[in-house]
Amino acid sequence: MVHTDGDVSAVHDIEILSLNPTVHKFATFKPTAVSKKDKENWARLDHCKKGCELKNDFSDVKPTTLTERAALFESARCLKCADAPCQKGCPTQLDIKSFISSIATKNYYGAAKTIFSDNPLGLTCGMVCPVSTLCQYGCNLAAAEEGPINIGGLQQFATEVFKKMNIPQIRDPSLTPLDQLPESYHAKIAMIGCGPTTISCATFLARLGYQNITIFEKEEFLGGLSSAEIPQYRLNYDVVEFEIKLMKDLGVKIVTGKKLGADGFTVESLKKDGYEAIYLGIGMPDPKVDKVFEGLTSAQGFYTSKEYLPLVSKASKAGMCGCKSQLPDLRGRVIVLGAGDTAFDCATSAFRCGATRVTVCFRRGFSDMRAVPEEVDIAKDERCEFLPYVLPKAVIQRDGRVVAMEFYKTDKNEDGTYGVDEDQFFRIKCDYIISAFGSQVISPIADACKPLQFNKWGTADIDPMTMQSRHDEMLFCGGDLVGNGTTVEAVNDGKTASWNIHKYLQSLHGIPVLSDTPQLPNFFTPIDLVDISIDFAGLHFPNPFGLASATPCTSAAMIRRSFEQGWGFAVTKTFSLDKDLITNVSPRIVRGTTSGHHFGPGQGAFLNIELISEKTCHYWCQAVKELKRDFPEKIVIASIMCGFNKEDWTELAKMAEASGADAIELNLSCPHGMSEQKRPMGLACGQDKELVFYICQWVREAVKIPFFAKLTPNVTEVKDIAKGAHDGGATGVTAINTVSGLMGLKGDSNAWPNIGDDKRTTYGGISGNATRPMALRAVSSIRRSLPDFPIMATGGADSADAVIQFLHCGAGVVQICSSVQNQDFTVVQDYITGLKTYLYMQSREDLLQWDGQSPPKEAKEHNPKLKGLPKFGYFQLERNKIETELNQSKDLHFRENPPPKETPKQTRPVSTVQGQVNRAIPRIGGHAQLNRQQQVVAIIDEDLCINCGKCYMTCNDSGYQAITFDAKTHFANVTDKCTGCTLCLSVCPIPDCITMVPRQIPYIPDRGLEPPTQTTSQ
Amino acid sequence: MVHTDGDVSAVHDIEILSLNPTVHKFATFKPTAVSKKDKENWARLDHCKKGCELKNDFSDVKPTTLTERAALFESARCLKCADAPCQKGCPTQLDIKSFISSIATKNYYGAAKTIFSDNPLGLTCGMVCPVSTLCQYGCNLAAAEEGPINIGGLQQFATEVFKKMNIPQIRDPSLTPLDQLPESYHAKIAMIGCGPTTISCATFLARLGYQNITIFEKEEFLGGLSSAEIPQYRLNYDVVEFEIKLMKDLGVKIVTGKKLGADGFTVESLKKDGYEAIYLGIGMPDPKVDKVFEGLTSAQGFYTSKEYLPLVSKASKAGMCGCKSQLPDLRGRVIVLGAGDTAFDCATSAFRCGATRVTVCFRRGFSDMRAVPEEVDIAKDERCEFLPYVLPKAVIQRDGRVVAMEFYKTDKNEDGTYGVDEDQFFRIKCDYIISAFGSQVISPIADACKPLQFNKWGTADIDPMTMQSRHDEMLFCGGDLVGNGTTVEAVNDGKTASWNIHKYLQSLHGIPVLSDTPQLPNFFTPIDLVDISIDFAGLHFPNPFGLASATPCTSAAMIRRSFEQGWGFAVTKTFSLDKDLITNVSPRIVRGTTSGHHFGPGQGAFLNIELISEKTCHYWCQAVKELKRDFPEKIVIASIMCGFNKEDWTELAKMAEASGADAIELNLSCPHGMSEQKRPMGLACGQDKELVFYICQWVREAVKIPFFAKLTPNVTEVKDIAKGAHDGGATGVTAINTVSGLMGLKGDSNAWPNIGDDKRTTYGGISGNATRPMALRAVSSIRRSLPDFPIMATGGADSADAVIQFLHCGAGVVQICSSVQNQDFTVVQDYITGLKTYLYMQSREDLLQWDGQSPPKEAKEHNPKLKGLPKFGYFQLERNKIETELNQSKDLHFRENPPPKETPKQTRPVSTVQGQVNRAIPRIGGHAQLNRQQQVVAIIDEDLCINCGKCYMTCNDSGYQAITFDAKTHFANVTDKCTGCTLCLSVCPIPDCITMVPRQIPYIPDRGLEPPTQTTSQ
Repeated sequence: MVHTDGDVSAVHDIEILSLNPTVHKFATFKPTAVSKKDKENWARLDHCKKGCELKNDFSDVKPTTLTERAALFESARCLKCADAPCQKGCPTQLDIKSFISSIATKNYYGAAKTIFSDNPLGLTCGMVCPVSTLCQYGCNLAAAEEGPINIGGLQQFATEVFKKMNIPQIRDPSLTPLDQLPESYHAKIAMIGCGPTTISCATFLARLGYQNITIFEKEEFLGGLSSAEIPQYRLNYDVVEFEIKLMKDLGVKIVTGKKLGADGFTVESLKKDGYEAIYLGIGMPDPKVDKVFEGLTSAQGFYTSKEYLPLVSKASKAGMCGCKSQLPDLRGRVIVLGAGDTAFDCATSAFRCGATRVTVCFRRGFSDMRAVPEEVDIAKDERCEFLPYVLPKAVIQRDGRVVAMEFYKTDKNEDGTYGVDEDQFFRIKCDYIISAFGSQVISPIADACKPLQFNKWGTADIDPMTMQSRHDEMLFCGGDLVGNGTTVEAVNDGKTASWNIHKYLQSLHGIPVLSDTPQLPNFFTPIDLVDISIDFAGLHFPNPFGLASATPCTSAAMIRRSFEQGWGFAVTKTFSLDKDLITNVSPRIVRGTTSGHHFGPGQGAFLNIELISEKTCHYWCQAVKELKRDFPEKIVIASIMCGFNKEDWTELAKMAEASGADAIELNLSCPHGMSEQKRPMGLACGQDKELVFYICQWVREAVKIPFFAKLTPNVTEVKDIAKGAHDGGATGVTAINTVSGLMGLKGDSNAWPNIGDDKRTTYGGISGNATRPMALRAVSSIRRSLPDFPIMATGGADSADAVIQFLHCGAGVVQICSSVQNQDFTVVQDYITGLKTYLYMQSREDLLQWDGQSPPKEAKEHNPKLKGLPKFGYFQLERNKIETELNQSKDLHFRENPPPKETPKQTRPVSTVQGQVNRAIPRIGGHAQLNRQQQVVAIIDEDLCINCGKCYMTCNDSGYQAITFDAKTHFANVTDKCTGCTLCLSVCPIPDCITMVPRQIPYIPDRGLEPPTQTTSQ
Repeated sequence: MVHTDGDVSAVHDIEILSLNPTVHKFATFKPTAVSKKDKENWARLDHCKKGCELKNDFSDVKPTTLTERAALFESARCLKCADAPCQKGCPTQLDIKSFISSIATKNYYGAAKTIFSDNPLGLTCGMVCPVSTLCQYGCNLAAAEEGPINIGGLQQFATEVFKKMNIPQIRDPSLTPLDQLPESYHAKIAMIGCGPTTISCATFLARLGYQNITIFEKEEFLGGLSSAEIPQYRLNYDVVEFEIKLMKDLGVKIVTGKKLGADGFTVESLKKDGYEAIYLGIGMPDPKVDKVFEGLTSAQGFYTSKEYLPLVSKASKAGMCGCKSQLPDLRGRVIVLGAGDTAFDCATSAFRCGATRVTVCFRRGFSDMRAVPEEVDIAKDERCEFLPYVLPKAVIQRDGRVVAMEFYKTDKNEDGTYGVDEDQFFRIKCDYIISAFGSQVISPIADACKPLQFNKWGTADIDPMTMQSRHDEMLFCGGDLVGNGTTVEAVNDGKTASWNIHKYLQSLHGIPVLSDTPQLPNFFTPIDLVDISIDFAGLHFPNPFGLASATPCTSAAMIRRSFEQGWGFAVTKTFSLDKDLITNVSPRIVRGTTSGHHFGPGQGAFLNIELISEKTCHYWCQAVKELKRDFPEKIVIASIMCGFNKEDWTELAKMAEASGADAIELNLSCPHGMSEQKRPMGLACGQDKELVFYICQWVREAVKIPFFAKLTPNVTEVKDIAKGAHDGGATGVTAINTVSGLMGLKGDSNAWPNIGDDKRTTYGGISGNATRPMALRAVSSIRRSLPDFPIMATGGADSADAVIQFLHCGAGVVQICSSVQNQDFTVVQDYITGLKTYLYMQSREDLLQWDGQSPPKEAKEHNPKLKGLPKFGYFQLERNKIETELNQSKDLHFRENPPPKETPKQTRPVSTVQGQVNRAIPRIGGHAQLNRQQQVVAIIDEDLCINCGKCYMTCNDSGYQAITFDAKTHFANVTDKCTGCTLCLSVCPIPDCITMVPRQIPYIPDRGLEPPTQTTSQ
């Protein structure tokens, strides 16, 4: 800051730091021997903990678990296919693309609602489903190089956010209320075993209105196999409890400690107790044990998976049983027998119980293994060993303990079967054996199920289309018991059974169900009760979501379909008088170039050179008439355009009014200027405040119904044009039409679109998200200058979230086009649930800290020993070591059951749509009104940092050189030079990793050089 | 189209098709038994061909191979980390993030240049590198859920595009020309074995200027192990040939049929022949064979990998040897011994030679396998079997043929070593055995290498830092011979050796190399000779890329660094008179919301509320003075701003001129209006044509140097404002400044950015790609109205591609900010190579069909039997069957060597930057000038289609119901109703899958209803 004229580098007051990339004048140079070693400093892959480091470590290992960043990335990547194959692969036929669409718009409740509607165990399934064999199996993106969507992870993410919202389930309010249902709905229904299939069945029956459902569970904890056998690191008890609570919200009762076959508790005893329908969801409770293991006990070092896994769960799942169970204390080498999913749960659990080596031994070859890749991969990463082609021959004991096993060698025959050569066998040492050879039902439980019978595969003999026993029509079964082994299949069995139990019970009570198609109710919560209608410009809109006058309104039939999907209003495609009829050119609608080289849906912008409707005004007036006749509660707005001519505007406006339209929109902003005609139309009128004033005055004289002037953003001050409309008598305005632009040129210097052999183009109208910042500005600036003037907003509204922003800026209702172009009319349901959720959340104090539906960043406690250690290379190995030590000394015997979570009260009234309008306006103003004293600076969360150094790069080459970057740890550090410009946060790939916090010391700008004694100007 | 007033649905002239999604009123319903079967119709995963279906199928199996779509997606995902760990993991220390940056901007030559600069076998390595253990090993995105970048695939993609360009390598033109180099550069250098390490070493030596390099290769084909042992489906011969041609472009000579140790050809004989340095890149030519296999031959069913793989290559690699080799004719069960990468190449090849079952047998457990995951996964997918923990004991023969093998059982000891229990063994049947137990050098070859000695591991005894023999300083080695087994390590050994050979030879000739840091020249081609300077507004710009007056010009030191990285010019951050000094608020620069929920670099937009420079005009004038002193060839433009006051503008402009600035830019467009001051500044002046006129007139009077008025887009017609500047005497204009907007609101209705406790905000300026369509429009419309007025363009220029579009629209030079904010100053090198490539490509007839650097879609011949069969479910299985049949009947004995490819001549002059200016202008005009007769319609390429149905969705809900969708095949079909609107193409995720072609029948618009006999207005 010293003025040293003549100095070599007077104004070099900073140094650009050494790690910032520079252009290479020469090829790099490093001998292979050096780089081979050096790369280990930076390793990210292959540095997860190995099995022997995992003792007592029950933290989540699912590679599918997603942060919000990743969920948004993945959901944006999803194509939302027309007849999506993912849905066809899901046993519950979950509408996967719809819930992924909702995640992409940050409407996590909407996603959860879709999920729980079809699958009451949506969170469990998101965590444990073997998606590669189900939904992901048919993902069309598997045909593109970036691979199929992580559907399980997205399902888990959305439902976990909903779980955090802590909202109860209620019954669909549009169904007959419980107190008006006939007696048949009070039929006593018994369900045995509180596992996934039962929870699903009970939930759907309760949604239908059954009020007397009792679940009998043999254990004191709930959840069945989800709790007892799926390890904590894949599914924690909290999740099970959450889904059971949602079921209990509907009035389902649970009795614990009732075991089938014990104390005279049988199917027959339940019948005697007056139960009219029984659902058996007891799984396969008894292990299959090879005869070589007969008589062996855990004291000798032998477990079946059915003994072993519950012991692990009880000792490691917080809240499951409040007991002080201890983990099975394994050590040394553990052999796991079997190659199903359970075997792999045993194998990975064994490491956590202290095993130093785990070998999974199985009869078949690798390529015939039953387990799903998801499970095998976890085991592989943890350095589990595999031994294929073996069959148990004998257990070798010494001093009453297992010390080795003998195996026969198997081999695959030419025909694909497996043979055993009894002459060939060998021995391997081991300290523990866990047998995971599957399970079965035997007496006394099998007897207690009578009259249920079992087929030759040992599963319940039922009709798989109804889940009804072939031997007693009041008896239904599902899940493992019928041979459907995955959780999601069990859930679907319960769902299938529920409808058939319903049909059975209603017939029993003489009220046969006539519907051919099952009508199982969807998931509902108090959010769905929220009213999102709004009175706007004298009209009652069922919701604020409407179709803009654009391609989705190309014909009346399309508007009709849109109303059926839930849209609140529609503006017709603009029509003109016959003399102004147009003919389009083609191509005319092109993809945006504003979001990089992005192909597929989710386009951030479109550009069009499409003119107004090619259909006649007669068509459109007839269309409006019919639409209003068939959808009287929806708002239909006729969009019209004429040249600057009073007679024309009068004629067309009157025609529109006569058609029965609720309102008229004057297209004063079509960006193509309708230059086919002799006279200026569209934007050519809309850019002139005076012309707008006159046209509005003419229309006001011509019609009584409300009308809106649709404004172009291609003006110096849109609020001035709005003033013209206002003064001319318009009811309100629509802001904004498309933004004039040239989307881009191809390599041969031709534009896209280009027309005809001479490849000419013209400026087009840009729509979509790229224009939203301009639309928000236009709406709020009109609002600030005309406080009571109704505004319909349009321009990049692609979600409830965006619509709410428009409401906050002053709009009453919002028009949408581009996001329908990207997908289809059903997106409106996402907007509806999104808006309802937002309004509901305002009523709950505890949810006010959320940003929309994004939960606030969780304050995490970090072990100080891990501070300064990044998560790569030798640092990660050091972290592993410290964490392993901490885990191994951890006392896992702390498992008190936490108190049940109460749903917080709604202490404030649920907000209305009207209540959102204008909320942001008081805080928008000029630059001079901004506070220059209260400044901020950046801080970086070391735990979230992925060491990319983007903050360092941008701060150096586009900022203030206020971030340093450690050459070894790759941690970035913000220095006192930070001016709070916020660029670092803007380019940081990890949300919440950088935050802006109040500056503690006064901000003194760096002026560089003070004026010299004699300034140059004097 | 019939007018039927009163009819129920008069205007329902279309039907919305049944597969279009609808809102679900009820939960879906399908019994598990049904969905289990149904999902198989849709399977995508797990439907690749199995081993036994692969006979004669040598098509690419690398899952990393990328289409352009995927390459763009993946390169956009890359964070381009500051001190990128990928580079540290690459043995050649390739600047990976830079080449990925270039792919992201579609500058594929730029990417290839970066790759080949450090790795002359960049394409080979992209195809065969085990990236998970190298570059990908440290990828920071491994810490995010979406996983590390597919670096190998990107490298392959860029270099393959370059290969298609068919451009020769030349020597760096900035080096001393060959004819001026001393005699030492004519030293005779011999290199033995034409494999990767030699090609690398020879290339770098030739780049340095050595003119007498001879490679001796024992085979008649070239490429060493790349050709002989890596199978066709991982690396084809064409690639090897291409990289050798690049080497030969530099004058390296090759002699084939010269085998070390044969015919007296030895290291010593070469010395006698006058070679001054020798490089040995002979690999490990002899197989290691276990003694149990002694005496076995292929006739008996035994191969070593060293015998087997070359046989496969010769018969399956087109062009490799012109011979009519046959594939080894395997059948039945094949055992492969070993668990290194070679073993897996043998295993997957075996399927292709006819094996029905392949089992890889190895001594260790799975978790200790040596092969990289990339290789193992391919084998796994093809249903190769694995047998761990076995050691060969004996081969069982019958009738002179192998029929089985006996193995000892091994086991892992507690200490991690492996033991063999000689009492335990077993037998498995087999028809063929392939031993892949590694390789070695033995006599006579080892003897022929003397004086080279071998160490205890059997590898050459060299100094790994120099690759120089410890026993003869003229002898250097690399690759397998020194124990560096991967191709990329071999390449780096050659690179390391080249510098040390250079040092050795120069010392030998008495000219010791003094540089401490190696100076190996980069890759050059004729593209790098292209001149991209331009004379613009009377100034000579070294290139058209400059920094806009914005955050990258916050200080003089930053401009200094930018010039060092290659920027052609810079505009200072705007400075004012002392009385107008400002103080910024914070936060003030935020991420865009226009491209979805995108975190990290590659932001499509930023919004800022940053004011002009906080530094004084004295600082900036001194800065300009120093910058011009130190970088006289760069253009420095001073950006200034005053209120509407002649004296102020005069004073400041004169100061700027006195500082030595080449030109001045008048900031008439700062969107914040500088409202801190009493008088209007920035945009408040720039929106008024008259004020602009007067300010320009004042400045014109004050200074002689060129000056530009920087225009705001926030006006009705930017060309009118430009006219004001023109008439006021400005040299030219800069278009456009940022677009006024409100980026978005948070859930609590506060904007981001918001300032201070009262969380106020103001409209900010949007920059970046979101504004490019407006900038292209502004530039071209100014050009069209003022044909000769110089324009500097700015607004979303993020690549050479975008800059060329601005040139085509009329700009002479282009200013850039946002893309530097997203990354750093080095991006300019990407722009430079990108622009040079574009200009070069204009000189080659054969490249004119490319779109920029994207090659035209290849016309593929498809077997008619596959038509109508989509690539999923049973259809895919059917495809597999047909393809397998076709392959099995294929005659692989057609392998003629194709004629060598000639580089096409440059038949036109290389274009200049000036030659690009205005190219698009003649074809931009009004809508009325567009051709309404020449219309287009869409067609869909069934082979590229991934069956998502996005085209069907958008055509139905936002278009013309002109696309149908088959419920079973999920193929979309365009009907006669297509109006050519182009929405389908805009949302199709697969580039080139939908194309617009001329319409064959006249276009007749659907008018809906004709006017009634009596129109309503009469």
